[in-house]
Amino acid sequence: MGWNSWDCYGAAVLEEHVRANARYMAEHLKDFGWEYVVVDIQWYQPSAVNHQYEPFAELEMDEWGRLMPAVNRFPSAAGGAGFASLAEYVHSLGLKFGIHIMRGVPRMAAHRRLPIGSSGYFCHEAADPNSVCEWNPDMYGACCDTEAAKAYYESVFALYASWGVDYIKCDDIARLYPQCEKEIELISDACRSCGRDMVLSLSPGPAPLDRVEHLKRFANMWRITDDFWDDWKLLRAMFERAQKWCIHAAPGHWPDADMLPVGAVRQCDDPNEWTRFTQAEQRTMITLWNMMRSPLMIGAEMTKNDAFTLSLLTNADVLAIGRESFCGHPVVTTQEESIWLAPRQDGTGVYAALFNLTDEARTVSLDAGRLEICCKEAAELWTGQKMALGKTLSATLGAHDAAVFLLRRDD
Amino acid sequence: MGWNSWDCYGAAVLEEHVRANARYMAEHLKDFGWEYVVVDIQWYQPSAVNHQYEPFAELEMDEWGRLMPAVNRFPSAAGGAGFASLAEYVHSLGLKFGIHIMRGVPRMAAHRRLPIGSSGYFCHEAADPNSVCEWNPDMYGACCDTEAAKAYYESVFALYASWGVDYIKCDDIARLYPQCEKEIELISDACRSCGRDMVLSLSPGPAPLDRVEHLKRFANMWRITDDFWDDWKLLRAMFERAQKWCIHAAPGHWPDADMLPVGAVRQCDDPNEWTRFTQAEQRTMITLWNMMRSPLMIGAEMTKNDAFTLSLLTNADVLAIGRESFCGHPVVTTQEESIWLAPRQDGTGVYAALFNLTDEARTVSLDAGRLEICCKEAAELWTGQKMALGKTLSATLGAHDAAVFLLRRDD
Amino acid sequence: MGWNSWDCYGAAVLEEHVRANARYMAEHLKDFGWEYVVVDIQWYQPSAVNHQYEPFAELEMDEWGRLMPAVNRFPSAAGGAGFASLAEYVHSLGLKFGIHIMRGVPRMAAHRRLPIGSSGYFCHEAADPNSVCEWNPDMYGACCDTEAAKAYYESVFALYASWGVDYIKCDDIARLYPQCEKEIELISDACRSCGRDMVLSLSPGPAPLDRVEHLKRFANMWRITDDFWDDWKLLRAMFERAQKWCIHAAPGHWPDADMLPVGAVRQCDDPNEWTRFTQAEQRTMITLWNMMRSPLMIGAEMTKNDAFTLSLLTNADVLAIGRESFCGHPVVTTQEESIWLAPRQDGTGVYAALFNLTDEARTVSLDAGRLEICCKEAAELWTGQKMALGKTLSATLGAHDAAVFLLRRDD
Amino acid sequence: MGWNSWDCYGAAVLEEHVRANARYMAEHLKDFGWEYVVVDIQWYQPSAVNHQYEPFAELEMDEWGRLMPAVNRFPSAAGGAGFASLAEYVHSLGLKFGIHIMRGVPRMAAHRRLPIGSSGYFCHEAADPNSVCEWNPDMYGACCDTEAAKAYYESVFALYASWGVDYIKCDDIARLYPQCEKEIELISDACRSCGRDMVLSLSPGPAPLDRVEHLKRFANMWRITDDFWDDWKLLRAMFERAQKWCIHAAPGHWPDADMLPVGAVRQCDDPNEWTRFTQAEQRTMITLWNMMRSPLMIGAEMTKNDAFTLSLLTNADVLAIGRESFCGHPVVTTQEESIWLAPRQDGTGVYAALFNLTDEARTVSLDAGRLEICCKEAAELWTGQKMALGKTLSATLGAHDAAVFLLRRDD
Repeated sequence: MGWNSWDCYGAAVLEEHVRANARYMAEHLKDFGWEYVVVDIQWYQPSAVNHQYEPFAELEMDEWGRLMPAVNRFPSAAGGAGFASLAEYVHSLGLKFGIHIMRGVPRMAAHRRLPIGSSGYFCHEAADPNSVCEWNPDMYGACCDTEAAKAYYESVFALYASWGVDYIKCDDIARLYPQCEKEIELISDACRSCGRDMVLSLSPGPAPLDRVEHLKRFANMWRITDDFWDDWKLLRAMFERAQKWCIHAAPGHWPDADMLPVGAVRQCDDPNEWTRFTQAEQRTMITLWNMMRSPLMIGAEMTKNDAFTLSLLTNADVLAIGRESFCGHPVVTTQEESIWLAPRQDGTGVYAALFNLTDEARTVSLDAGRLEICCKEAAELWTGQKMALGKTLSATLGAHDAAVFLLRRDD
Repeated sequence: MGWNSWDCYGAAVLEEHVRANARYMAEHLKDFGWEYVVVDIQWYQPSAVNHQYEPFAELEMDEWGRLMPAVNRFPSAAGGAGFASLAEYVHSLGLKFGIHIMRGVPRMAAHRRLPIGSSGYFCHEAADPNSVCEWNPDMYGACCDTEAAKAYYESVFALYASWGVDYIKCDDIARLYPQCEKEIELISDACRSCGRDMVLSLSPGPAPLDRVEHLKRFANMWRITDDFWDDWKLLRAMFERAQKWCIHAAPGHWPDADMLPVGAVRQCDDPNEWTRFTQAEQRTMITLWNMMRSPLMIGAEMTKNDAFTLSLLTNADVLAIGRESFCGHPVVTTQEESIWLAPRQDGTGVYAALFNLTDEARTVSLDAGRLEICCKEAAELWTGQKMALGKTLSATLGAHDAAVFLLRRDD
Repeated sequence: MGWNSWDCYGAAVLEEHVRANARYMAEHLKDFGWEYVVVDIQWYQPSAVNHQYEPFAELEMDEWGRLMPAVNRFPSAAGGAGFASLAEYVHSLGLKFGIHIMRGVPRMAAHRRLPIGSSGYFCHEAADPNSVCEWNPDMYGACCDTEAAKAYYESVFALYASWGVDYIKCDDIARLYPQCEKEIELISDACRSCGRDMVLSLSPGPAPLDRVEHLKRFANMWRITDDFWDDWKLLRAMFERAQKWCIHAAPGHWPDADMLPVGAVRQCDDPNEWTRFTQAEQRTMITLWNMMRSPLMIGAEMTKNDAFTLSLLTNADVLAIGRESFCGHPVVTTQEESIWLAPRQDGTGVYAALFNLTDEARTVSLDAGRLEICCKEAAELWTGQKMALGKTLSATLGAHDAAVFLLRRDD
Repeated sequence: MGWNSWDCYGAAVLEEHVRANARYMAEHLKDFGWEYVVVDIQWYQPSAVNHQYEPFAELEMDEWGRLMPAVNRFPSAAGGAGFASLAEYVHSLGLKFGIHIMRGVPRMAAHRRLPIGSSGYFCHEAADPNSVCEWNPDMYGACCDTEAAKAYYESVFALYASWGVDYIKCDDIARLYPQCEKEIELISDACRSCGRDMVLSLSPGPAPLDRVEHLKRFANMWRITDDFWDDWKLLRAMFERAQKWCIHAAPGHWPDADMLPVGAVRQCDDPNEWTRFTQAEQRTMITLWNMMRSPLMIGAEMTKNDAFTLSLLTNADVLAIGRESFCGHPVVTTQEESIWLAPRQDGTGVYAALFNLTDEARTVSLDAGRLEICCKEAAELWTGQKMALGKTLSATLGAHDAAVFLLRRDD
């Protein structure tokens, strides 16, 4: 659970944004479990201004071909300090600090034939000239069977460890099986041996379902979709993906449904931009992410949160689902509705979520026998309402809305 | 849970076999939950002798084009009595009676233009001359958009209800989506409106995963594979299928991994035939079927059961898994091993099954944290052994063997 | 070159139609090379009335399971005479006689277990209960590896030879590779050994291009499309097919672009029906069929031919192309135009056809160097106009129209 | 018809090799129609030594990002002279001069942001960072919709015109439809507007058959296979490709079956290397290339030609086929044999080639009626033997051997 700069600042986040959001999280959200603050892509590009990438842009780089924060955007990085100062600030708030990286070696570092630290290897030996990202022009993928590539990844993870990084979102990799398989292993090895615990998150999706065991072994989380935005079609489509991946969520490895585009998003384009999701859709999103136990990453410029957005992010009962349930899965999936069940780990009950996928109000019902639990009362967690449980569990829901119940076992 | 004549008698079972197996079940297995006795395919063909089908064979049929038991094989069917007498006998033992049917209308009934009871329709109006089974030559599929087809299916289900049938295994249909969709609905409607409760089971597999909601709505169980036999490759492959289907097992609708080829099988070929599965493989099969909550149908000529076979079918603790767990699913699936978890419905604990998929002995282990439950002791259900639970749950297993543990929550 | 009853009479042609068209051909077309008169499908079905097929219809059949002409439609077939009398009449006009057959054995003959002449085999042994036509309900395909199937096909070809049949259009076979491969061989063997020369024509298309050598070896002609009708889209699409197949046209084996729906067609539906092709489109069709050397089969009720239709079918210069050229092939194929070249076999010149595929008038041109022949004059064969040949060969053509030139080599 | 350095020198040909082969061609082959001398890939790489490519190698380049001949390999290029002096020498022998290019912009030129002459555009604006060759690391493909890309291609073709280049083999492009479509057009436009006539040849194959009209419009020749080498499997496979492409060979645009690996090949690896084709296979190759009218490019170090190799390249009757026939195409294509026909453009006769594709001696025959020509005598062109033509044209051929006949029309 945390915050990531992409949805609100694209490739152009500034240090002041990061600090402000970290402060907000510490004050308002930390107690509800939120803890990671993550700087997304292009922090090494001085000229970045929005969500676009710029071919052949000049990138900030040290003499060993390692990308460094652009000082014009991250003043505390001056003098080669990197993200050490920013990470220290985030830690001082009781939070954790993460960054985005692209797999591979900067193209410019390869063409300049820069050395890789004192390893004796060179960046152009670590780079595969045919391995280029389809959507970002900065890097060459690694020549994974070379010692040079191993040395390069170790050199960058050593740098991140020295800065105090707690979380790495590695991009251009998760959906590229089978080519990326070796590179994931190389990155995972460098991450686990760098001397600091870091969460390793792989993007972008969709990662392939049939490689789930590889993902579980070498990563802590991985994206199951392409970029998710505030569009009902994308949220609607997540139900199908969630169904496929749900049985693979477990301690240490989590299918990731991507960021939550709530509140003030796309601030780099227009400071008046706000999520296009209705309140109902936001409830549906938060409910589904919890039932499938997806990681939760806030996309808003949080300092602009309104009361509703804050209430979404601080409903302790709903947020508990992801931490305290297991085995969550859908039991009904039609064009019109979806119903999920998830037992509590402590055996005291079952969560049941009812989703209305249509564009009109609808009553969604589940035969109580289908819960496979003895229970007389149901508590709805968004409203707090309690109700006696009869032959069916049901809720009348507005368009795209959700209800989620805790059904406590009778003693 | 029940017995079916296919694995031991193919298309050629006799009334005396059915009665003998029903008696055996009542005496030895009924107390462990086994209850259905099912007569499989070609009971209407006087000349059937083994698992083969005979093109253009003469079939026993009434004047309205409904297939009738071959009197030379089922003497109690003489005089047009059908299966009424046999069903009555099975019921008298406290068991339930089922039969196999092929979808559609007998070809000969269509070519003879027989009437459908007093409906005013004719068999050739109900038959689609282009809808033929790939592996059995007896029937034409129904012209599903005709009233004649509706009338034909109602006429046969009325007959089955009059006989006292409790279970219909309908064949040549489950894997034929999308063509079979309407015919499944027609059969389901005729089944549900015939005045007698019958379980509707669809064969053969593999049914398509993406039509699971249709299957859940119109059938009680459906096959997820082609015919399953006593071959390790098929059992090995079931793990992948089980993973895909496990979240869809629930009261009223069950993915079906097919019959259990244990004990004396293929009796129509050779009375000395015995299952080719090792004891280990049989434990693996029974464990997996229970963890995924598949229906259980015995394939043996049960009167020849040896002690081991009987012990498999009467291990109450293992058989309880299918009834008392829910949300069963795999948590590890590699080439070498599979590990499944399933919470108990009553919240008192979790079942964990460990499978060795290799051809050699192997220790299979799961990090105890992965159980997501507080527990100090594990009981293995095949051996009855109890052990303290440390940081891992593990078992040393022979080739293709399984262990399954009940982990009771600490109070 | 000939006439076939399908386009005008569907499944319902009568003997009087056949005789009238044969007479017309003898009087008006024979001198231009037209010679075959072919009775199309369902001549054995008394109840046929139009282009539709009737499931489970009663079919006229002899005691050995061989279909016979329906006497109500073909009076001269009375008393078991079959088509002998009609064939004799056609022969008396100096023409040749052909019939349509479906591959396989009548379903009713198989279900009745009729004997195959005195062979000792039975129809049900020759029939494959799983081999059914997708669009016609009358037959089962043959069990091609049985002696019974060989005997059945020999028995029917012996009958056709006794009637004096010169041409067999065998249906439900040409596009069914690889299943049909053996059945084509069986039919071809029966045809070649029956004691009478018959052209063997295979339908329906599209036959698969990659099996062309099999087709060349076992058949005289085969369809390259599904049924062709008077629709510009279908004619437009024929250019692509013609390009793929053109190099395979040669003495003894001809890719067949199907019948020519000219003049009075669909007479079984409405005696006022007339081809929907424009005159330009008909010129394009006849030109293309000749450049690719396709067989030519007239679809009209010829006795209703108007002057234009008759002129199409009696342009000796155009009809000569198919007989006197070789190596015809396209040299330009764009969305807007097609240009074909074909040298004359006698070395005296080259044919060049220019097609306007657009919906508007257009000048179509070819660089004269592309002709690879020394020539000063070009003669257009539809109009008879001669023109000097400059640096380009060109023609201004109306929508969907064609011109075709004979370029005679300079001496 | 010409010579290309790839088969014998890979990426490492030297100026002295080119001059020696040009001299040899002028003396021994020019009179038989051979005229182009082509320098293949990597002439701009000082460090090239064999057929391999070197990632991130230093390339010779001018200040405007245009690759220049490596002076260590092409001494006459010193002082920025480029290939002008070498081209002049080739022209002085009465021959023509060609070079290989890769599509696109050198990566290093893009990363250095070099200007494109005085156009005001820069190399990095012309380069697409995502368009990289799969097998060669030197270039980025062009951003085809930019004026910068147009300017870059115009700048390089202006240079080639100033050198006196007659033939451009453009690589990494012909099989990349649809992506390459625009880039082919850009290159073709630059080539046709550069002020000097140049043949434009596209590599590597297989170019897609369904884009043949685009190829015909924008290129003079294009490869129909991946690199062809002296391996019977590749030669065997060429028959199928030749069949598909044969109707598209015509003045101005030629499907290209690739170089002829005859005589002394792979000289950069070992000066003792010799073609692995048998003499029979070489006859088959030269015959097929001529019947399909493929361009002919010699792969040998010609100065080492033995008598057989020279005889192959100087058989005037066989080499005439490609120039004097048209409409060449296969008439039989089985696993065992292939037979091709091609009429002479002057109408005096037909060429017929018979190929034995098996590993054993075999008599290959064609029914004389299939020739569609009146002829009494056949002359075999490899042996010069004449024979009377009976009912069949036939030849007894050793394994993988060919015969080709000229059948002159009777007067």
